[in-house]
Amino acid sequence: MARVYNFNPGPAAMPQSVLERAQSELLDIGGTGVSVMNFSHRSEEFQEIIDAAESGIRTLLEVPEEYSILFLQGSASLQFAMIPMNLRRLGRSADYVDTGRFSQKALKEGTVTGAVNVAWSGREENYTRIPNLSELKLDPDAEYFHICSNETVSGTRWTHFPETRAPLVADMSSEILSRMVDVRRFGMVYAGAQKNLGPSGLALVIIRRDLAERAPETVPIFLRYATHIAEGSLYNTPNTWGIYMLRLTCDWMKANGGVRKVQQVNEQKAAMLYGIIDASGFWRAPVDKQSRSITNIVFRLPSEALEARFLSEAGEAGMVGLKGHRSVGGIRASIYNAVSLDAVRTLVSFMKEFERKNG
Amino acid sequence: MARVYNFNPGPAAMPQSVLERAQSELLDIGGTGVSVMNFSHRSEEFQEIIDAAESGIRTLLEVPEEYSILFLQGSASLQFAMIPMNLRRLGRSADYVDTGRFSQKALKEGTVTGAVNVAWSGREENYTRIPNLSELKLDPDAEYFHICSNETVSGTRWTHFPETRAPLVADMSSEILSRMVDVRRFGMVYAGAQKNLGPSGLALVIIRRDLAERAPETVPIFLRYATHIAEGSLYNTPNTWGIYMLRLTCDWMKANGGVRKVQQVNEQKAAMLYGIIDASGFWRAPVDKQSRSITNIVFRLPSEALEARFLSEAGEAGMVGLKGHRSVGGIRASIYNAVSLDAVRTLVSFMKEFERKNG
Repeated sequence: MARVYNFNPGPAAMPQSVLERAQSELLDIGGTGVSVMNFSHRSEEFQEIIDAAESGIRTLLEVPEEYSILFLQGSASLQFAMIPMNLRRLGRSADYVDTGRFSQKALKEGTVTGAVNVAWSGREENYTRIPNLSELKLDPDAEYFHICSNETVSGTRWTHFPETRAPLVADMSSEILSRMVDVRRFGMVYAGAQKNLGPSGLALVIIRRDLAERAPETVPIFLRYATHIAEGSLYNTPNTWGIYMLRLTCDWMKANGGVRKVQQVNEQKAAMLYGIIDASGFWRAPVDKQSRSITNIVFRLPSEALEARFLSEAGEAGMVGLKGHRSVGGIRASIYNAVSLDAVRTLVSFMKEFERKNG
Repeated sequence: MARVYNFNPGPAAMPQSVLERAQSELLDIGGTGVSVMNFSHRSEEFQEIIDAAESGIRTLLEVPEEYSILFLQGSASLQFAMIPMNLRRLGRSADYVDTGRFSQKALKEGTVTGAVNVAWSGREENYTRIPNLSELKLDPDAEYFHICSNETVSGTRWTHFPETRAPLVADMSSEILSRMVDVRRFGMVYAGAQKNLGPSGLALVIIRRDLAERAPETVPIFLRYATHIAEGSLYNTPNTWGIYMLRLTCDWMKANGGVRKVQQVNEQKAAMLYGIIDASGFWRAPVDKQSRSITNIVFRLPSEALEARFLSEAGEAGMVGLKGHRSVGGIRASIYNAVSLDAVRTLVSFMKEFERKNG
């Protein structure tokens, strides 16, 4: 088979060595004669895996002891529902910032079960930037302050996080482990696994334990963070394959120098792409420079016809997943941790050649 | 590696050929150069897989057109919460039968968000039987009637399903696809995947579409069946690996003659085990004969010391997962579809020899 460079936005590329290890032990893990998918989640074998996954995350992100690390299901979308159910007491409100598709989805879910204050919206500016702290209209009594730290669709990110009175809650699905963050600045961080952590069907939640104790009694048992904290993510049968893959991914991160080292490579990858985009009028990055994502690089060509040709020729050259989100069009290169410098170099060379021929 | 016979209650054994196929195409599915885990869930490649999974279930269980087939997450436990939220209108009640651990878990979740009528409980009889229809104390206004059709822990099952006015809702996690059922007799059937369908982290829901329209407006968007029906299980990123594995499992079921044929083998497997258990006073099956599960065969030995020796020697002989649930002790052989006649023959031979030496 030909080498394929995978720029999918998620489910996205995984490290080759992680895939190869999963393949090699798929029928028999550790000489047990059993697939990792076929152990009881209450077995010693699986407990070892989930413990290693938890300690992998705790080490990589330097998660303080007062935070629990949970492996849930339902992708970030279930969190959009669980956050207001758990963290917003009856009759209270919460602050949300609307920076695009995913923060909007979270915000909309927040309105179903109670009051929400939209502290800022980028809708009228087509979601091309992240606000300054001074622009935020905060509710002094808000129970929490919700952001999507990196918007996969529009390609923006919070380069700096705001200091707020209310606990900061961040959807980091499309940038978790791609840069170092100080977890202490957050009440809760969460992420669907399918970009930087593992396969889809798994969600990581890092929550300061005191926040998990606010949930009203009317919240279903399964939908309370406290339930999963008390049972070490084993209240119900978890996604055992996903947790195993996340554990392998943590090992790969450590072998590659940890988050800070991987972040350096990510910044280099992003700089290469924004470099060629900014170098001529042929390409156009719609996002404000201060708000540019380093994981989802969004850009346009002079016409939709050229964009279609770009995608088609890139596909023939072995580069897949470059189409912009259906709601905005254009091109998007998702360059998560597992997308190598080599893959980005190949894309940049292809872009140069494409510009030479069509510019 | 030595051959291992896997009697785990779930996550449980999978067909060897399914595991081998998953292994062989883990790095590259269909010559794409990409792992099935690394495609966007909105790609044509994945749409083909989810369509095949849906049509696999529809064909195998002869699911009528007026029922939707959903692939959700959160195992059966999320369904315990979603069912009352969606199917029980405000101020109304629902009937539940308490036949053991999992129906109890469903019932308890039902009480958090509204009223519940316990139509029958087997608690005082240690959950050793399923009630007759005449014993049920039904609420004439109940919104639905909930059962767990096969209790994994106590090893009981509803051999015949009750005719009730309220739509019948059944948790079939530990017996789905192990016997043919007439889906028309149910308002909804659901199952965690990790016994007969695929890996954990995936839940199958088969729901009559009119029932999905009852949900009050206060139910979060993500937790409404109508949301997932409208989006073909792609409202959020689904468990793509799990859906792929489920699709391979459906293919394996078809290659093995479909549900009716697999059911014959399952009945033969169960008869072999109950046969030796009933043949002497050495073994004891606590479950009433009319209520015996054909997938979870629960039995006791004359003493706990002998049970411990049985488990230890079985493990040495390559038979794993035979320990009874921590809440009840004893022995449990879970013999789902992927557990072969050969595996059951090996267990029966081992039991004969064990009885000869210790009887």
